[in-house]
Amino acid sequence: MATLEDIGVSAAINILSAFAFLLAFAFLRIQPINDRVYFPKWYLAGARTGSPGSAGRGVIGKFVNLNFATYFTFLNWMPQALKMSEAEIINHAGLDSAAFLRIYILGLNIFVPVTLLALLILIPVNVSSGTLFFLRKDLVVSDIDKLSISNVRPKSNRFFVHIGLLYAITFWTCCMLYKEYSYVASMRLRFLASQQRRAEQFTVVVRNVPRASGKSTSDSVDHFFQKNHPDTYLCHQAVYNANKFAKLVRKRDRLQNWLDYNQLKYERNPEKRPTRKTGFLGLWGKQVDSIEYYKHQINVLEKRMALERQKILKDSKSILPVAFVSFKSRWGAAVCAQTQQSRNPTLWLTNWAPEPRDIYWRNLAIPFVSLTIRKLIISVSVFALVFFYMIPIAFVQSLANLEGLERVAPFLRPVIELHIIKSFLQGFLPGLALKVFLYILPAILMIMSKIEGFISVSSLERRSAAKYYYFILVNVFLGSIITGTAFQQLDSFLHQSPTEIPRTIGVSIPMKATFFITYIMVDGWAGVAAEILRLKPLVIFHLKNLFLVKTERDRAKAMDPGSVAFAETLPSLQLYFLLGLVYAVVTPVLLPFILVFFAFAFLVYRHQIINVYNQRYESAAAFWPHVHSRIIASLLIAQLLLMGLLGTKKAANSTPLLAILPILTFYFHHYCKHRFEPAFRKYPLEEAMAKDLAETTADSDQNLKAYLSDAFLHPIFHSFEEQELVEVRVDKQQRQATNAQISEVSPPSPLQPVHQSSSSPPPQHEEHEDIYYQPSNPQYQYDPSVPSHYTYQPPHFPHYAYHYQDQP
Amino acid sequence: MATLEDIGVSAAINILSAFAFLLAFAFLRIQPINDRVYFPKWYLAGARTGSPGSAGRGVIGKFVNLNFATYFTFLNWMPQALKMSEAEIINHAGLDSAAFLRIYILGLNIFVPVTLLALLILIPVNVSSGTLFFLRKDLVVSDIDKLSISNVRPKSNRFFVHIGLLYAITFWTCCMLYKEYSYVASMRLRFLASQQRRAEQFTVVVRNVPRASGKSTSDSVDHFFQKNHPDTYLCHQAVYNANKFAKLVRKRDRLQNWLDYNQLKYERNPEKRPTRKTGFLGLWGKQVDSIEYYKHQINVLEKRMALERQKILKDSKSILPVAFVSFKSRWGAAVCAQTQQSRNPTLWLTNWAPEPRDIYWRNLAIPFVSLTIRKLIISVSVFALVFFYMIPIAFVQSLANLEGLERVAPFLRPVIELHIIKSFLQGFLPGLALKVFLYILPAILMIMSKIEGFISVSSLERRSAAKYYYFILVNVFLGSIITGTAFQQLDSFLHQSPTEIPRTIGVSIPMKATFFITYIMVDGWAGVAAEILRLKPLVIFHLKNLFLVKTERDRAKAMDPGSVAFAETLPSLQLYFLLGLVYAVVTPVLLPFILVFFAFAFLVYRHQIINVYNQRYESAAAFWPHVHSRIIASLLIAQLLLMGLLGTKKAANSTPLLAILPILTFYFHHYCKHRFEPAFRKYPLEEAMAKDLAETTADSDQNLKAYLSDAFLHPIFHSFEEQELVEVRVDKQQRQATNAQISEVSPPSPLQPVHQSSSSPPPQHEEHEDIYYQPSNPQYQYDPSVPSHYTYQPPHFPHYAYHYQDQP
Repeated sequence: MATLEDIGVSAAINILSAFAFLLAFAFLRIQPINDRVYFPKWYLAGARTGSPGSAGRGVIGKFVNLNFATYFTFLNWMPQALKMSEAEIINHAGLDSAAFLRIYILGLNIFVPVTLLALLILIPVNVSSGTLFFLRKDLVVSDIDKLSISNVRPKSNRFFVHIGLLYAITFWTCCMLYKEYSYVASMRLRFLASQQRRAEQFTVVVRNVPRASGKSTSDSVDHFFQKNHPDTYLCHQAVYNANKFAKLVRKRDRLQNWLDYNQLKYERNPEKRPTRKTGFLGLWGKQVDSIEYYKHQINVLEKRMALERQKILKDSKSILPVAFVSFKSRWGAAVCAQTQQSRNPTLWLTNWAPEPRDIYWRNLAIPFVSLTIRKLIISVSVFALVFFYMIPIAFVQSLANLEGLERVAPFLRPVIELHIIKSFLQGFLPGLALKVFLYILPAILMIMSKIEGFISVSSLERRSAAKYYYFILVNVFLGSIITGTAFQQLDSFLHQSPTEIPRTIGVSIPMKATFFITYIMVDGWAGVAAEILRLKPLVIFHLKNLFLVKTERDRAKAMDPGSVAFAETLPSLQLYFLLGLVYAVVTPVLLPFILVFFAFAFLVYRHQIINVYNQRYESAAAFWPHVHSRIIASLLIAQLLLMGLLGTKKAANSTPLLAILPILTFYFHHYCKHRFEPAFRKYPLEEAMAKDLAETTADSDQNLKAYLSDAFLHPIFHSFEEQELVEVRVDKQQRQATNAQISEVSPPSPLQPVHQSSSSPPPQHEEHEDIYYQPSNPQYQYDPSVPSHYTYQPPHFPHYAYHYQDQP
Repeated sequence: MATLEDIGVSAAINILSAFAFLLAFAFLRIQPINDRVYFPKWYLAGARTGSPGSAGRGVIGKFVNLNFATYFTFLNWMPQALKMSEAEIINHAGLDSAAFLRIYILGLNIFVPVTLLALLILIPVNVSSGTLFFLRKDLVVSDIDKLSISNVRPKSNRFFVHIGLLYAITFWTCCMLYKEYSYVASMRLRFLASQQRRAEQFTVVVRNVPRASGKSTSDSVDHFFQKNHPDTYLCHQAVYNANKFAKLVRKRDRLQNWLDYNQLKYERNPEKRPTRKTGFLGLWGKQVDSIEYYKHQINVLEKRMALERQKILKDSKSILPVAFVSFKSRWGAAVCAQTQQSRNPTLWLTNWAPEPRDIYWRNLAIPFVSLTIRKLIISVSVFALVFFYMIPIAFVQSLANLEGLERVAPFLRPVIELHIIKSFLQGFLPGLALKVFLYILPAILMIMSKIEGFISVSSLERRSAAKYYYFILVNVFLGSIITGTAFQQLDSFLHQSPTEIPRTIGVSIPMKATFFITYIMVDGWAGVAAEILRLKPLVIFHLKNLFLVKTERDRAKAMDPGSVAFAETLPSLQLYFLLGLVYAVVTPVLLPFILVFFAFAFLVYRHQIINVYNQRYESAAAFWPHVHSRIIASLLIAQLLLMGLLGTKKAANSTPLLAILPILTFYFHHYCKHRFEPAFRKYPLEEAMAKDLAETTADSDQNLKAYLSDAFLHPIFHSFEEQELVEVRVDKQQRQATNAQISEVSPPSPLQPVHQSSSSPPPQHEEHEDIYYQPSNPQYQYDPSVPSHYTYQPPHFPHYAYHYQDQP
């Protein structure tokens, strides 16, 4: 049991480290040399090129900020972060980012009134109740417990205040959730409606195309859709299995990097040509000239790549039973995506195509039959991971209980008894250890999701987030509560009756409040402050700058804007909602800590989204239903645990009153799911038809076909030289020419990239490692012609960007 | 504990009563006077008119069978029931009936090999194991227990035989389930493909049409679908809230019945005019002439009906926000039914329209907003019903334990100790009491389902079946096992740990085998034999015949063919699957009883379906997914209970082996759901398109529109005289005429029923109480032109019917 003093030490440490991070950030971000680390988004958006103020200033001024006045306004990023309106953020960073920020606003909306209410009502009720009653005398009493529900006498009528408050909190939370769900849903629909013509609006991904003997996949797709969607079918794009080729491309890039590095080294030090050994990792073997060696290796590899490319284009087996089928209208695509095509429901599975840059190409090659088996295996292993990861966590948690540690290892007593070390160990270590544990986890979960076989990056991230949420719920939340008190195994937990489980958890919840307060400070306060510092990208950028960068273009490549890692941030955010709702009635002192987190994190992420992050895809807030349902789950958990807690307080006569609440909450969830979720899953025909009609009819099918023809080509094929790209297209046309009806009208200008025939500017194809397109595609521009109640103003970003250029 | 002797007595009683029923049936069915009770299906199919052989025979011969030779072949209905092929049954009675019979075939397919295997392997293993081990010495040992798993010593290695057998049984059951699911799914698709043009193939029911101010519902529907389905929308039919009018119609019919009765009475006894009193139920008040009284009442009522009818047609409020929207092609309807229409997912909800005769009109008037609340209320009350119904059952079950009863009420001892009475009480009463209890239940559950607001009779029956299944599972199966052994309450059950529950149930399962054997004999054997006798319809028919029937047409009306009551028969059938699978490894002696049930019930229901039942609707085997998933649930329960049972046998080291089985079974279920269920829920576009193309293109839209125009009119409007029917139609046309585009071409011949302009014969509108159309509609005829591997032969029903006409 940590005492108030421990909490004080922990708070001091965390607040100090947060301030240190902020100071470091304030210092580093105004150095011109770090500009690409802290403002990459503006480079990508085209608002900045080169270092600001690089013209007409000395060599030092290029790297270090010499205007000392700016050093004294080190927190001025905060008001700046708040300046941009939501509509501008959508325009600037996409709807995903804007909706992500809404989660923090939702948190503030829920917890500001809840905190006030809980502190004002519950603290007097809890404190005045008199003596503190404990189930076990051997546990150390902390001062925080005196403010919590533990201080209320059993059988007291005061518990009705807690129950009443839980009703109020549930009601308020549901109101806020409803309002927010409705707001985000309308934001999404408006966003989709305001988008200009996009390839995925007309396209459906068809999986499990049956292999007919004597017919190519392309032929069967053409035949099937011409038959079953005669009025709307336009064309389709076959998917090549280019995984092996992509591997070669990655290898070539790696070698190219080494070559660049060595060439740069040679340029700087022309006396000595760099050498390396030919053996494994350059550790042994014959000494050779590095530049020659890498040039030769690249040459060999490029020959292999040419062969492989030939093979892909010629071999019919490299065409996967997957196709991107495009329609003449959005209506046609909406119809095809939502209906069952074939008699056999496992064939011709249609679904909306993800954005081209959102597609996870490698998984398209997974044979459909193996998908269900993969899902089974992954769900079993997630279960194993969630439940057997608990053992190491339990060990680390045991450190928090120093009395226990001293008993186990008495020789450590002299060290532990030192006052500072004890406070440090009890206040800081448990949270940090847990955080380190969790650091490698998202990568594992993402690999698991990839094995599961989802075909878009956005769904992969959502699946990883779900897994991570289960993990956090069981291991961080439940695991901390249960192992922290009794070090019981999952096994003994299973042997309790279903009504006993909420009791054992409920009774130990108030005791773990101090642990979670520490956790919030470490993970929420210091962790978020560390996020704004971007230490890792900073170091990597400068390393790259030192060893690889030759031109401005190289420097742009070395820039790593990163993105909001939904797979990690969403579940951790949901943990804060859970903690807030569970402790609102039990230990209301915890709430202000959560409020500070929400406010601070909101500012930090708003700043990062505006200045740093660059989302790799746009899913139009597709994650919101998960956010909503997990907050509902948190509510249900809070209600259940309070029931369990009151059960141990012999206030059993009040539990029937509490039993109604989960039913009502669940019903609310059911209603919301029914009311809003279709907006995130389906595309209403009304919407599609309206958008079809609104589009100028002057745009002929021909134009559309040209526009769509390469949209869903594997991005590595874009790295071909122009001549080869034509080859792919000609090859496709030949294949289509065999299918009579529509292929007569072949797309024009085979030597020009087809994108130029449409109104949108050509995507940047030059960089071969660009698996994802470049961001802030003009197609995403907010369209002011669409009616909306946004008070949309003409973009005044230049003013905004001006603030930054003001710096010397 | 019932002994072997008790079982013998019970078996004797049940076999005797079954034989008595069969003899009575054999005697009654060959009496010409009962012909309409035992062969109504043939009258409805038009194969018989009037009593057979009524021409050229004496007055007695008209009522009593005088050909004594036929009395000696009293079981000859059995081979006759097997003669008709499955394709003929589909043609004769519809796919629902044919699929229903497949359940019995599935039962036989599963249990014949399982019975052989279990008896041959397990009985030697169980018997040879030596002494019988008991947990409690005070329980009486029955001989049947010696053949069961109870007889195996704890920690014996023999339990691996049981586990291996459960693996084999699970594997075999899954194979059979897969085969049958695939067979029924293809049967369904073939049936749908072979159907001729049907109104519901082109029609979608739209619910929650938003009320626009200044626009009628009809206008908004027209506007919306012309906009969003411009190429396929044909027309729509508004739905009138005629519930009040329907009530008046029912009242008129009741009065008409009384009038008929009194007139007949007067005809037979012309001296005395029948009189009645005017007061409540004719019990007091002024004495009046009955015929005049009823004539007057009917007159008054008809005036009110005319007023009400006027009101419905004129008042725009009586048009509900529901419409039947028809399309030009099946493809268009399939698209509309499967897609989301509106931005707001709670508006414009589309779904396939049920068959006109399947629609439960009254629920169409339920406002959509109240549906979710209704569902919540009903699910809570089903829970209450399922769990608090247990108390009376527990009391009845206590009778089965006579030792317990004697202890409680020692004064009953002399009566109970009488040998016959004891056997009777122990063998017969528990099953019978339970059966009586269950008799009123389906009606309650159906009312609950109606409150839930489903709009088709078939879905109402499926929902009732689900509720009934939960009831049977908890109260009959679990309730018998738990209360039978320890009279524990649900409460104490809740306080056990989740791993403890299968143990307490598992350990008492072998002891309840005798109870379930009795239950199978009472409910399965005697009950099914009683089903074929049709005692209730027999009595009612003869009463009606005596008091109401004047003409042949009246006699046809008095005939009540009934139908397979899916809401009751499906869940009870599923109980047999559950019993069979649970006891297969525990007490294999129970299996032959189940086998006899399946075989006998198959014969009886096949006979009834051919000769008696007349399904009110055709859902094309839509209930099969439920049948499948509940057998899977039975498998899971069997596996779980065996795990619990082995847990008490200290064979815990073998349980991990058993734990894999539920996972595999669940996975199998998941696969089947994915593979086959869409065939029962959706209508693939491929199918729709093929059928659209196959239909002669000569049929113009005009024809189709005329064909559809009245298909979904509330059936009570069909009872209007011709003039009034025209009025409705004209009224509709006027409303449609305001909507420019398509209403120019108004349907021709307003004075002729529009059905005559299509190729199908006119439905029978004359009888006003015919809420459901007449059966064996020619539209259902099997179409031999559709390719199928049925070896379809031209109908030879006359030969078949000849057998019956052979009887004098």
